[in-house]
Amino acid sequence: MKASQTNLPVDATRIADVIKGLARITEPDRPYTRRAFTPMFLEGRAFLDRQFKAAGLETRIDASGNLIGKRKGRKSGLGTIMLGSHSDTVPEGGRFDGIAGVAAALEVARALDDAGIRLDHDLEIVDFLAEEVSIFGVSCIGSRGMAGLIPDGWLSRSEGDLTLRQGIVDAGGDPSRIAQLKRTDISAFLELHIEQGPVLENERRDIGIVTAIAGITRIEIFIEGQADHAGTTPVGARRDALVAGAALVADVERVALRLSEGEWHFTATVGEFEIEPNAANVVPSRARLLIDARAERREDMERFITEVDRMAVELQRDRGVTVSSPKIVSDNMPTPADITVMAALEAAAENAGALFRRMASGAGHDAAWMARISRSAMIFVPCREGRSHTPDEWAENDDITLGAAVLVGAVRRLDTELQEQT
Amino acid sequence: MKASQTNLPVDATRIADVIKGLARITEPDRPYTRRAFTPMFLEGRAFLDRQFKAAGLETRIDASGNLIGKRKGRKSGLGTIMLGSHSDTVPEGGRFDGIAGVAAALEVARALDDAGIRLDHDLEIVDFLAEEVSIFGVSCIGSRGMAGLIPDGWLSRSEGDLTLRQGIVDAGGDPSRIAQLKRTDISAFLELHIEQGPVLENERRDIGIVTAIAGITRIEIFIEGQADHAGTTPVGARRDALVAGAALVADVERVALRLSEGEWHFTATVGEFEIEPNAANVVPSRARLLIDARAERREDMERFITEVDRMAVELQRDRGVTVSSPKIVSDNMPTPADITVMAALEAAAENAGALFRRMASGAGHDAAWMARISRSAMIFVPCREGRSHTPDEWAENDDITLGAAVLVGAVRRLDTELQEQT
Repeated sequence: MKASQTNLPVDATRIADVIKGLARITEPDRPYTRRAFTPMFLEGRAFLDRQFKAAGLETRIDASGNLIGKRKGRKSGLGTIMLGSHSDTVPEGGRFDGIAGVAAALEVARALDDAGIRLDHDLEIVDFLAEEVSIFGVSCIGSRGMAGLIPDGWLSRSEGDLTLRQGIVDAGGDPSRIAQLKRTDISAFLELHIEQGPVLENERRDIGIVTAIAGITRIEIFIEGQADHAGTTPVGARRDALVAGAALVADVERVALRLSEGEWHFTATVGEFEIEPNAANVVPSRARLLIDARAERREDMERFITEVDRMAVELQRDRGVTVSSPKIVSDNMPTPADITVMAALEAAAENAGALFRRMASGAGHDAAWMARISRSAMIFVPCREGRSHTPDEWAENDDITLGAAVLVGAVRRLDTELQEQT
Repeated sequence: MKASQTNLPVDATRIADVIKGLARITEPDRPYTRRAFTPMFLEGRAFLDRQFKAAGLETRIDASGNLIGKRKGRKSGLGTIMLGSHSDTVPEGGRFDGIAGVAAALEVARALDDAGIRLDHDLEIVDFLAEEVSIFGVSCIGSRGMAGLIPDGWLSRSEGDLTLRQGIVDAGGDPSRIAQLKRTDISAFLELHIEQGPVLENERRDIGIVTAIAGITRIEIFIEGQADHAGTTPVGARRDALVAGAALVADVERVALRLSEGEWHFTATVGEFEIEPNAANVVPSRARLLIDARAERREDMERFITEVDRMAVELQRDRGVTVSSPKIVSDNMPTPADITVMAALEAAAENAGALFRRMASGAGHDAAWMARISRSAMIFVPCREGRSHTPDEWAENDDITLGAAVLVGAVRRLDTELQEQT
């Protein structure tokens, strides 16, 4: 049963119009590109600002450059329920990643208005700045900023003549006040996002209730062999860094398959792999691997790290190559969803007649940063073949609309429940 | 027993002086670099020309840019016995690759002179132009030219403002006459070279009698997978081009080990390996492999090609990726050594008290091109740890000197035997 076929208090057409409107605002020769800190992004922002205002929201740009539309609650001092995601894209990205979440959040405000429902809590709809890795090489600027967690030195990062500090100013923010204006009034944050994986589609589910955002650990390994002549050095007498690296790639896959056998989300990927000298007639002397591992449970990540250390030792022993001690270049803990918000989302999904399942998010999201200052949870909607960050990315408008209806239900529940709890 | 410890008619010091003299002629900040078509190379040539003249040789540059020093024989019409190798290097190459062969060849002329021996045949000492892959991306210019086998279009190859045609002119050649001056008078060609592999050193042999120069076949394979999100796509649901490529690398090694088990030389190397998009958080969508395979016997190469085709089919079947049909990008047949010249070299080695073995050359050499117009054979001398094309390349002067003595003996035998045969 799809949302558009019911009397749910959300309007599928309005959601589609926001998504289509943003899709038209793209670098024309490479849809869909609306990268943060570009004029195209600011055009998208202007479009959203008009949409927010048309929905009766009072808009502003906060210190971190986030666009916020506010609907006052009936009671003061209860704090804010915030909904939203991001409108920036990767180069040649899709029409739904982030955008579906902003459109659905806006529809919640409109649907409540249509139904004449005024919440006790303030309601805010947010379009976070620069969730994707931007020209400055980092991600989640807006949500990190809202949580007062932009690392030292990041504001001075530059690309060409532009610093991140100036980029935030250009977006309407005030970087000097980010730390001071760290939000402490947010009672709950809810984000809808496309799954970016194939699970919901394959299982024909409407909604994923996100249990946790996986921790991400990146591990770099160098293998040093010897650059011998490819024609004259017997195959059995080589120290071939590629052959050793290939064995490691196979090992990483084997361990990742084992760790992902159970119910907990785990992935590991060798995403970067290079060899030197990369010349036809020379036995490869050096290989570099960068492993990206994601775990819902920290214990799985720790097992994986232990396994990688073991693999490196065995590879050196068995292959006559020198393997660097695996270096953890970044290491973020998993972020569990808030159980109160998750429960409200599940109850709302149940009530909307949605087929749902619990699942972890393997991708990072603004919701993980919001969890540092607020109750925070997410829902996923299906996307075709799990594709994202590509113009082929596709989500059915009916699925997004059903997701928006779930958000409406959850917000109404939380508006009451959060008062009872506090 | 080393040559310098005997009364062999060769002078170890003169050989060492030529090698040291050339070693001093290098780009100063990156020894040992004396690439063809550079001023440094022409400086080396001028040094050699003086050395050739001092040995009483009549020098000239032929149409292909080869430096040739001639010693007239007693009988006209018998043709020429030619000895030599090349003095150009790769960038940051070694002091012995090619150079040892030129120095040994020159010492043969000097030793014959010292002993008052005049051959019936004309004797020529040659420094071939551009044996190594030069700035024009191709190799063995001089020996191909001498055989009239420079492919159509090569002379127009350019690097910056320089064409290969002009490069040959700058070296003193006359490209317009290469085809016309193809040599047909050479009765035998002999080349000494460092082994560039570890076999002689490991087996403590003095001399390798080269049975054949291996055929070289290069095979390119593309693997197309799918660029999924590394965090959200379950490991079991991927089409990972790197994991597939790694399996192929392991298979190539396995097959190469099997084909090299017997007495015949066979190697296979994945020397070039790249993936796309090579980004930490994206499942690799594409991999490219370039395999370099070398076989003493064509039948082994054909088995290997069949195996690679089979592996590609199996990989596609087992891994859900699309594997391009393996493309043979170059394919050269093995070049067997001439049995008369080989027998003369073996008899001379025996006579010099050298420990020798038969072996194939996995590397290409000028001798392979000379085989197209002449009887042709080679000997190898040991080099340390099989290293070459690196400043660490090392060969003992005693080993080169013993090799030169073997050349003297072989030349003297051939001077008689070739008359008996014709």
